[in-house]
Amino acid sequence: MTITITAFESSPDRGRGLARDMRVRWALEEVGQPYNVRLVSFKAMKQPAHLAIQPFGQIPTLEEGDLAMFESGAILLHIAEHYPGLLPDDANARARAITWMFAAVSTMEPPIVDREIARFTEGDKPWYGERLAMIDKRIRTRLDQLSTRLGDTDWLDGAFSAADIMMVHVLCRLESSGILEEYPTLSAYIERGKARPAYKRAFAAQLAVFETSKASS
Amino acid sequence: MTITITAFESSPDRGRGLARDMRVRWALEEVGQPYNVRLVSFKAMKQPAHLAIQPFGQIPTLEEGDLAMFESGAILLHIAEHYPGLLPDDANARARAITWMFAAVSTMEPPIVDREIARFTEGDKPWYGERLAMIDKRIRTRLDQLSTRLGDTDWLDGAFSAADIMMVHVLCRLESSGILEEYPTLSAYIERGKARPAYKRAFAAQLAVFETSKASS
Repeated sequence: MTITITAFESSPDRGRGLARDMRVRWALEEVGQPYNVRLVSFKAMKQPAHLAIQPFGQIPTLEEGDLAMFESGAILLHIAEHYPGLLPDDANARARAITWMFAAVSTMEPPIVDREIARFTEGDKPWYGERLAMIDKRIRTRLDQLSTRLGDTDWLDGAFSAADIMMVHVLCRLESSGILEEYPTLSAYIERGKARPAYKRAFAAQLAVFETSKASS
Repeated sequence: MTITITAFESSPDRGRGLARDMRVRWALEEVGQPYNVRLVSFKAMKQPAHLAIQPFGQIPTLEEGDLAMFESGAILLHIAEHYPGLLPDDANARARAITWMFAAVSTMEPPIVDREIARFTEGDKPWYGERLAMIDKRIRTRLDQLSTRLGDTDWLDGAFSAADIMMVHVLCRLESSGILEEYPTLSAYIERGKARPAYKRAFAAQLAVFETSKASS
């Protein structure tokens, strides 16, 4: 069945691969599944047709036959369950990989996203400097814990899995913050992820969308 | 195999059932699985023995035989995959239920938790009122969208599932905010969840822990 995902028609990250369609593209490249991309404008994202498959008006979504779903974590789990290579066969190792998929989106990502939200909504407020320091403290607590756990291993739990796609991509959102430079273990982990051919193909595909949108605007 | 979960030795919510062990207890009650609870102090939560199974120093965790895992979303999915009654059999309906499990923890919960973090860390700041209004605006956007999607249906997608446990419990954290009173659809949804015998048994079990800790302190 044909897989169709959605992505920003005009990505706010300007082709840096930070939008959440990137993790879905990466997973599909890892398992070697071709996919179509339907680009959605900010306006269309809030219209009934899109809200019918994504009630919060966001991207990405995945459509495959009669199935329509959203949430990058759920989409990656769906891909990993249907195509081999992104989840271990051993039941306990599989449960731990899914643990890390949830940890990426519900423990690591919220303070990192909060940093972006604060920049947009509080960047002009007199308290912004103090707020940013508070957010960065929360982020560093999580990075300390993740770095300690990762130690000198290559991936979160044994072999590379969908959890590493989620976690590496969540951490990428900190790249322009300068904070990652304090964490050589995590920087090396991100680089290992980015060195994968599937990552590179996914990155090129999302960058091509941005280049096209730039050329036509 | 015996299931053991962890919970706060002394819950900061004073027995109101808002800590994340509540959703795990609820799921285990729904599927009729007995479980042991190991209570963890705030100090022990940051010690190596607990960090070995929960690297971010939080509760809940689940241990079952050789398996140790964390993240309430992953734990509920594990329970739902191993015991019948919390996920639909139909493959597409199952994928949508997992979508909603991720939506609960990664789309709905972050602004709700942010409200609590702000109260603790910014409650004494001169900007707190303005910040709270910004957070509540983000929360209302999500509640509007969720309420619209839920409409006049009983549960998120067809039959009651693990996704409803996650979502109802996430919404419960707003109960003292007064915001839920603006959302009769969501208030009724929460009440439907709380009316389930399994919810009531789980609530009583976590309340008993608080009553015991209060009596012994």
